[in-house]
Amino acid sequence: MTPAAPAYRRLSVEERRSQLLEAALTLFAHRAPEDVSLDDVAEAAGVSRPLVYRYFPGGKQQLYEAALRSAADQLRLCFDEPRQGPLLPRLGRALDRYLAFVDGHDAGFSALLQGGSVVETSRTTALVDGVRRAAADHIHSHLGVTDPGPRLRMTVRMWITSVEAASLIWLDEGKQPPPGELRDWLVDQFVAGLTVTAARDAQTAELVRGALAAGT
Amino acid sequence: MTPAAPAYRRLSVEERRSQLLEAALTLFAHRAPEDVSLDDVAEAAGVSRPLVYRYFPGGKQQLYEAALRSAADQLRLCFDEPRQGPLLPRLGRALDRYLAFVDGHDAGFSALLQGGSVVETSRTTALVDGVRRAAADHIHSHLGVTDPGPRLRMTVRMWITSVEAASLIWLDEGKQPPPGELRDWLVDQFVAGLTVTAARDAQTAELVRGALAAGT
Repeated sequence: MTPAAPAYRRLSVEERRSQLLEAALTLFAHRAPEDVSLDDVAEAAGVSRPLVYRYFPGGKQQLYEAALRSAADQLRLCFDEPRQGPLLPRLGRALDRYLAFVDGHDAGFSALLQGGSVVETSRTTALVDGVRRAAADHIHSHLGVTDPGPRLRMTVRMWITSVEAASLIWLDEGKQPPPGELRDWLVDQFVAGLTVTAARDAQTAELVRGALAAGT
Repeated sequence: MTPAAPAYRRLSVEERRSQLLEAALTLFAHRAPEDVSLDDVAEAAGVSRPLVYRYFPGGKQQLYEAALRSAADQLRLCFDEPRQGPLLPRLGRALDRYLAFVDGHDAGFSALLQGGSVVETSRTTALVDGVRRAAADHIHSHLGVTDPGPRLRMTVRMWITSVEAASLIWLDEGKQPPPGELRDWLVDQFVAGLTVTAARDAQTAELVRGALAAGT
């Protein structure tokens, strides 16, 4: 016996919107935004093109930005790590989640970070910058710093940028080395960067001393 | 006596083109590209708008790309450092020239690297990527490596990206710390990055050992 066709159920506005966003994210995740059409999204979601337009009257640009916002929200969740236990394993777990996200969204992730996409605007750039700022805020907060000075901030932002660069290269290089190795390497780079800055910045020096004393 | 007005001299096509590019570069250096009009360029160069169009029939986009290409050429020149003497002072001198370029082109430099500009295209992105690749090639060549492995390449590219991030933050922070301090800090970050990678990559370990032995 073939199973009965699922009863037709009208999706709520919110459900339909999520379904379209999910389809769009999957497409943007595997192709550059300029290679995704609204027809592709409609087909992937099993709906008509006009329906996609009903939900996203701004067309592809609006859909892309909504998908990006959803991706940015997911990225922020990666950074969410309880403020307990040794510091470096916390950073390692956040990196594990981040690298899993990069792994799952490869082409879309590259297109987003590398810019130059035809649908890139100052709004999408602001979204990406917002994620970067959130990452920096998380790191300062885990370090227990409420008022990071310019050198500490620069060190943290340099590391975040170099993690982005490493992710893009990692995708380019067929995801080598394995994510666990890359994670440990990035954690070590973080420690090295902080140590260099500690040699010329009292706030950072105190942080590093405190972390060493705590055995992290 | 007032000095005689300079004799009118018709500029050659090449001279005129250089004059327009120079005026455009100066404008793009101090304002975001979207805030520069062809009228501004014409006025700065003391010529008519139609004359600017005669040289750059593609309008602002073409002028911007030509100015960018000229900036990219200047950046490449920063990396040109004789392959003699200790390694780290070579890197320091290249960074001095690079930071002087960043200092002289502040707003334009930020707009270029941060993307999101309205005149950003895949061609301008390719130009910036070309400069990044040139920087990496120079570093490999100074390190005496003809066939850099993936970990060394990733380390060098991570450092280049973090130098870009540092430059942008430096501009944001009113050019603090002084360029000489920033340069030394960046050199130390380079050494720290290589050292971390040396712990997990034989090629990098050999480089670091060789550099230590040579006393650089």
